[in-house]
Amino acid sequence: MRTIDWVPADGGPGHIRLVDQTLLPGTLAELDIRTVDELVDAIARLAVRGAPALGVAGAMGVALAVQTLPTAQLPAAVARLRAARPTAANLAVGVDKAWAQARGGGGSAALAAALAMRDEDIAGCREMARRGAELLRLLVPEPPRLTALTICNTGALAAVEHGTALSVIERLHEEDRLERAVVCETRPLLQGARLTAWELSRMGAAYELIVDSAAASILAAGEVHAVLVGADRIAANGDTANKIGTFALALAAVHAGVPFLVVAPETTVDLATPTGAEIEIEDRGADEIRAFRGVATAPADAPARNPAFDVTPADLITAIVTDRRVVDLAAHRERSARSAYLGPSLNEEEA
Amino acid sequence: MRTIDWVPADGGPGHIRLVDQTLLPGTLAELDIRTVDELVDAIARLAVRGAPALGVAGAMGVALAVQTLPTAQLPAAVARLRAARPTAANLAVGVDKAWAQARGGGGSAALAAALAMRDEDIAGCREMARRGAELLRLLVPEPPRLTALTICNTGALAAVEHGTALSVIERLHEEDRLERAVVCETRPLLQGARLTAWELSRMGAAYELIVDSAAASILAAGEVHAVLVGADRIAANGDTANKIGTFALALAAVHAGVPFLVVAPETTVDLATPTGAEIEIEDRGADEIRAFRGVATAPADAPARNPAFDVTPADLITAIVTDRRVVDLAAHRERSARSAYLGPSLNEEEA
Repeated sequence: MRTIDWVPADGGPGHIRLVDQTLLPGTLAELDIRTVDELVDAIARLAVRGAPALGVAGAMGVALAVQTLPTAQLPAAVARLRAARPTAANLAVGVDKAWAQARGGGGSAALAAALAMRDEDIAGCREMARRGAELLRLLVPEPPRLTALTICNTGALAAVEHGTALSVIERLHEEDRLERAVVCETRPLLQGARLTAWELSRMGAAYELIVDSAAASILAAGEVHAVLVGADRIAANGDTANKIGTFALALAAVHAGVPFLVVAPETTVDLATPTGAEIEIEDRGADEIRAFRGVATAPADAPARNPAFDVTPADLITAIVTDRRVVDLAAHRERSARSAYLGPSLNEEEA
Repeated sequence: MRTIDWVPADGGPGHIRLVDQTLLPGTLAELDIRTVDELVDAIARLAVRGAPALGVAGAMGVALAVQTLPTAQLPAAVARLRAARPTAANLAVGVDKAWAQARGGGGSAALAAALAMRDEDIAGCREMARRGAELLRLLVPEPPRLTALTICNTGALAAVEHGTALSVIERLHEEDRLERAVVCETRPLLQGARLTAWELSRMGAAYELIVDSAAASILAAGEVHAVLVGADRIAANGDTANKIGTFALALAAVHAGVPFLVVAPETTVDLATPTGAEIEIEDRGADEIRAFRGVATAPADAPARNPAFDVTPADLITAIVTDRRVVDLAAHRERSARSAYLGPSLNEEEA
């Protein structure tokens, strides 16, 4: 099953088909998206989510735009698509790539770019899984089976066919190296409880769900061998924006002496953003906190703040694993006399 | 309004009346409790909760037992009451105090002990509020109005008439020294979102609700001047068991350089427990995580772990404020050459 794909049509424009993640884990249903407006809506309400999937969605959205809209409306449509969610680097990258092709070669070139991104995502996720699982062999040689803690959903549902951080856990499971996954439920939208639990169950991997704030004590108890998280944007110095709660996990991992790995495609690295301080953090509004699926969780008029992401400083991250390299930040810190807060440069390629 | 009180009856045994906290914030309703079984049930399902309120509930429960049960059944009833929740020190203390009186002086002595505890709780909470607000004047002289972050409910609903940590915030508000309270919603049962938000709203104090895992980034952003939490049990070395998530807040507070204060009655200090490692942590089962008020939040068969409390090591705590003293752990650490993990002795009285 693919989380997002392009459905070709005989003689006409094709369309996007994607899993409606707002209905999981109860219902597995797909949405057919035929207009840019439908796609922007699907992105905004998180029917499709996850940085890699958003990159592919953005590119396919441009293909859809070129095939369905008059030329004069294209720049505005592309801008709306690009801004549908502000924090994820991949969405803008996907839109920009396809749009650059579209301006030279029209709809078919935009679509070709989108399909190439889809295929690169599938291959890239496999590569991240391989690199991450290898790195864990070095970082945690014992015991033979690891317990890995994760947050949000970084599985197939966040990408096309395989995930990022969760693909490493999937790989450990396939290699019989997984004791169990500890899954943070991930308030407020519970992507961990709804999506990651569902994926782990489908792959037959042992897991345990916890409330987000229980992670610190489970880490301190020595029960977890590695923390694996995704990323929505990685600044040039290694500061990483990811699902709200990631920063707290990193603090707890450092306190417990447990490796903390960021696993994300190279497209998530944004060298134009020097540090985490420059990353725009999306606030998704009070309603997601005051009710869950129509059931009140707080007074109806409670003032609430709802940052969807936080920034984990590079100095709390052990390593960043992409489809192309492993940036070993811990080793950088050891080698470097610079303040850990300056961090290593992500321009440096793997040796 | 009192969270828990004793209703005398003409010529017969009186009974307990308490606010049913499971119905808040939607409905403010009181329960009349006439048997030990009803009380054990109310405690187990958190209709009454909060360490100080549980102490008073335990003592009143003994008075109820003596007045309603044959003597032969008393020891078993008292034991059931004492074990209704394992982590809170105060419940057992309250039961033991009233039971010691009951064995000497019967039902009226047990009731007198329970009513004395009720009155001491009311006075003690005022005293904690005063000491906490004074301490914050020293720790955070600027700005004139503070932003204080808290978790769970430590307000009047956790005690009799005033709370512990939240009573300090209430005091700041009364003294026009509160900018706003930042309230962690407190998964899984959302005592912060349901109860603390409701209390702050009733007292007219500005507040902002967040998901628990957002606290770390809000602290790191420098928006919060102090973290104030309650306690369910404080070990002799200062390690503190409190609502799950407290430990993560302490890690984030230390990282941000923000004072972290534990506010709890002296009865929460358990000198018979040397360190946090010896504190029994209640697991409340998977159901609280898999659904909220009948709405599924995860796959129905998801394995889940649900520790209700965690232990914050003493070396992350700035000070412990009780109704009788302020134990300045930070100053102890500065003065002492001992490992911070050994911590100061809580036997030491305030100078």
